[in-house]
Amino acid sequence: MRAIDIIRRKRDGLELSSGEIQTFVAAAARGQWPDYQLSALLMAICCRGMTAEETATLTRCMADSGTRVDLSDLAGVKVDKHSTGGVGDKTSLILAPLAAACGVIVPMMSGRGLGHTGGTLDKLEAIPGYRVQLTLSEFRQVLEAVGMAMIGQTADLAPADRKLYALRDATATVESIPLITASILSKKLAEGISGLVIDVKCGSGAFMKTVEDARQLARSLIRVGTANGLTIEALITAMDSPLGEAVGNSVEVIEAIEVLKGRGPRDVSDLSIRLAAIMVRLAGLARDDHLAEQKVRAALDSGAGLERFRRSIAAQGGDPRVIEDYSRLPLAPHRHAILAPRPGTVSEVRAETIGIGATVLGAGRERAEDAVDPGVAIQVRVRPGQRVQYGETLLELHYHSEQRLQAALPLLESAVRIDDAPPPPQPLILEMLS
Amino acid sequence: MRAIDIIRRKRDGLELSSGEIQTFVAAAARGQWPDYQLSALLMAICCRGMTAEETATLTRCMADSGTRVDLSDLAGVKVDKHSTGGVGDKTSLILAPLAAACGVIVPMMSGRGLGHTGGTLDKLEAIPGYRVQLTLSEFRQVLEAVGMAMIGQTADLAPADRKLYALRDATATVESIPLITASILSKKLAEGISGLVIDVKCGSGAFMKTVEDARQLARSLIRVGTANGLTIEALITAMDSPLGEAVGNSVEVIEAIEVLKGRGPRDVSDLSIRLAAIMVRLAGLARDDHLAEQKVRAALDSGAGLERFRRSIAAQGGDPRVIEDYSRLPLAPHRHAILAPRPGTVSEVRAETIGIGATVLGAGRERAEDAVDPGVAIQVRVRPGQRVQYGETLLELHYHSEQRLQAALPLLESAVRIDDAPPPPQPLILEMLS
Repeated sequence: MRAIDIIRRKRDGLELSSGEIQTFVAAAARGQWPDYQLSALLMAICCRGMTAEETATLTRCMADSGTRVDLSDLAGVKVDKHSTGGVGDKTSLILAPLAAACGVIVPMMSGRGLGHTGGTLDKLEAIPGYRVQLTLSEFRQVLEAVGMAMIGQTADLAPADRKLYALRDATATVESIPLITASILSKKLAEGISGLVIDVKCGSGAFMKTVEDARQLARSLIRVGTANGLTIEALITAMDSPLGEAVGNSVEVIEAIEVLKGRGPRDVSDLSIRLAAIMVRLAGLARDDHLAEQKVRAALDSGAGLERFRRSIAAQGGDPRVIEDYSRLPLAPHRHAILAPRPGTVSEVRAETIGIGATVLGAGRERAEDAVDPGVAIQVRVRPGQRVQYGETLLELHYHSEQRLQAALPLLESAVRIDDAPPPPQPLILEMLS
Repeated sequence: MRAIDIIRRKRDGLELSSGEIQTFVAAAARGQWPDYQLSALLMAICCRGMTAEETATLTRCMADSGTRVDLSDLAGVKVDKHSTGGVGDKTSLILAPLAAACGVIVPMMSGRGLGHTGGTLDKLEAIPGYRVQLTLSEFRQVLEAVGMAMIGQTADLAPADRKLYALRDATATVESIPLITASILSKKLAEGISGLVIDVKCGSGAFMKTVEDARQLARSLIRVGTANGLTIEALITAMDSPLGEAVGNSVEVIEAIEVLKGRGPRDVSDLSIRLAAIMVRLAGLARDDHLAEQKVRAALDSGAGLERFRRSIAAQGGDPRVIEDYSRLPLAPHRHAILAPRPGTVSEVRAETIGIGATVLGAGRERAEDAVDPGVAIQVRVRPGQRVQYGETLLELHYHSEQRLQAALPLLESAVRIDDAPPPPQPLILEMLS
């Protein structure tokens, strides 16, 4: 089967056979096709699309391109959560211990932040000593001992995705629902889970700008996940404003701990509980969402979730004393407050602008090889609909470098919009799909 | 201007600015973008198309990517012909001397054959001593002395096209009207001509299978050529059967000489005269096609065309005695005849099958680096509509290698179809566009 014939068929909008998809994915994983042929096919897929069946085959072939973790010897149902990427989204750090405390096995393999969105691994690494790069056997041990483990994707997990993702990033072929679906689900399938809940972020701060786009992606993920044997559901949640108040690695860990202590911002708490409840139901540990949520709330109220997070930190080499003593987490030494230039009502807190501002300040990375500064933070002091006085603090920045501050300020000063009339109220959870 | 932003805009179906096109073409010529980004953009162009304005800019930037020959110091109007590629098409060898004999300056830079279609350079090189690789100053000298010169494209002519064509060939992005248009016209613009007639081949043996496709390409060529200052017209001509009887390099030279002697197959003669007449009119040497054709026929009848061809061969180092003595041209030693398996009427003589068969026999090349065998030939002894008896010769093959003959026979035995009823008559010239 020649590369050029497979490319031509997709260019002409035809459906690729599973043999053709298998050939392409194996070639990507083994370096058998030159990059220019891979990228031509990726662009043809971007332009012509793929059927659900093609996408399911692509996903399976990509999952099969490397190690597939087998967790069948571990008792319990393995369920994970995936988010398509937002600003201030620290829910993984909350829902994983809550779901684990309810009896779900949570084998969570996460990525790092890129562009304006944060990454779970970067947040965890703000905890002194915390190791996200475990071997597969350490991963199993932690999972068996704590019921949850949060690590980085190992190099032999879905290597075809690694290769294709790097090319997509350089060739403007990221924005394709079949390619996004296969990239997300191939790694999740390789992780050894049987249930998955997806948080599809939607809005100006998300990859999917409209509910229609988010719905398309959610439907594709559910169809393709189901075809590959997963029990899978999705929430579409708003990502116009950052989730919670804290944006930055250390401060997001603190906010997550606050939520596990029964405090913390309401939106973060509500979404984490809702997602954890779906995981509990998908694991077969509750008959319906109502009962599942009761279980999760009980784990929160009893402190079982917080305790699980403490054990999980210790099991992965981190300092569990951060839970009581936030000063053990790094915080950048300098502060700058952005103040309201006029009185009025906050009409927008732009998540994307804040995410990019945080990256410019040093909290995130523009390129995969950049290092992040865990102590850099933005505290969002206002939310849409809130009335503010002239000179009231909108954002509080924690930074190391004056130069980075000056680069970030023009962005961050435009992040909060103040109008006369309040904006229409915006629900956090927009849709639920299964 | 980042590569990824240009690719993204075309992926989304937007019109590229001339700055963006200029950046892309310069990057291709200078190796500034990695191949995988070039091929992603080529596929996006293939899928999303380009406006006439974008195509005109692309063409101009590609022509400007290398040397542009300046022939303004040579008296006379410079007009060339281009064909999109057929089987048995030796018209260049006939119309160039005829047009030159009428006073047109014909600076013809041609390509080599690839796949099932032949190339003018390969035909000329069948003439002992003939040099197609002249320096630009030799090219000028020949042009000044003879009024015509037929050479290969020099390496510094439209280098962006060279780079992009190699990538298109490997990534299934050849079949795109904007890319074909820019590839053809950039080289012609760089040649220093002011007039051009295009022979768009159409049918089962051509790149364009339907008249609608051929018309689209012809219109694009005319629009974009005109936008770049060319006086340009196009004929759409049938390419279901080979043109003439001879397919193969030596035998096509012989057939061209026969036509210049006032003999030779009618279709080759008619088409060559028609194309040469358009060149004469485009050069301003005749008021209309009727007068132009009278001039061309006079040049043929007087032997001025033949004489011009003789001088042109001598000027480029070839042996002009081939004109009287065909035995000075190579001919493969072995013969094989393909006979009619039944009596009836010839309904098809499949040009593509004969072209591929000729390539397998050694007359053409499958890859750009292959050598061709100038003495290999297929003589087509029948044409559609002709009645044949059982055992009558359909094709006569001249070959060197028994192994190649055996490989070509299954193809060539299926090249001529015999039915009971005659096929509908097919005109050679289907449309004329200006």
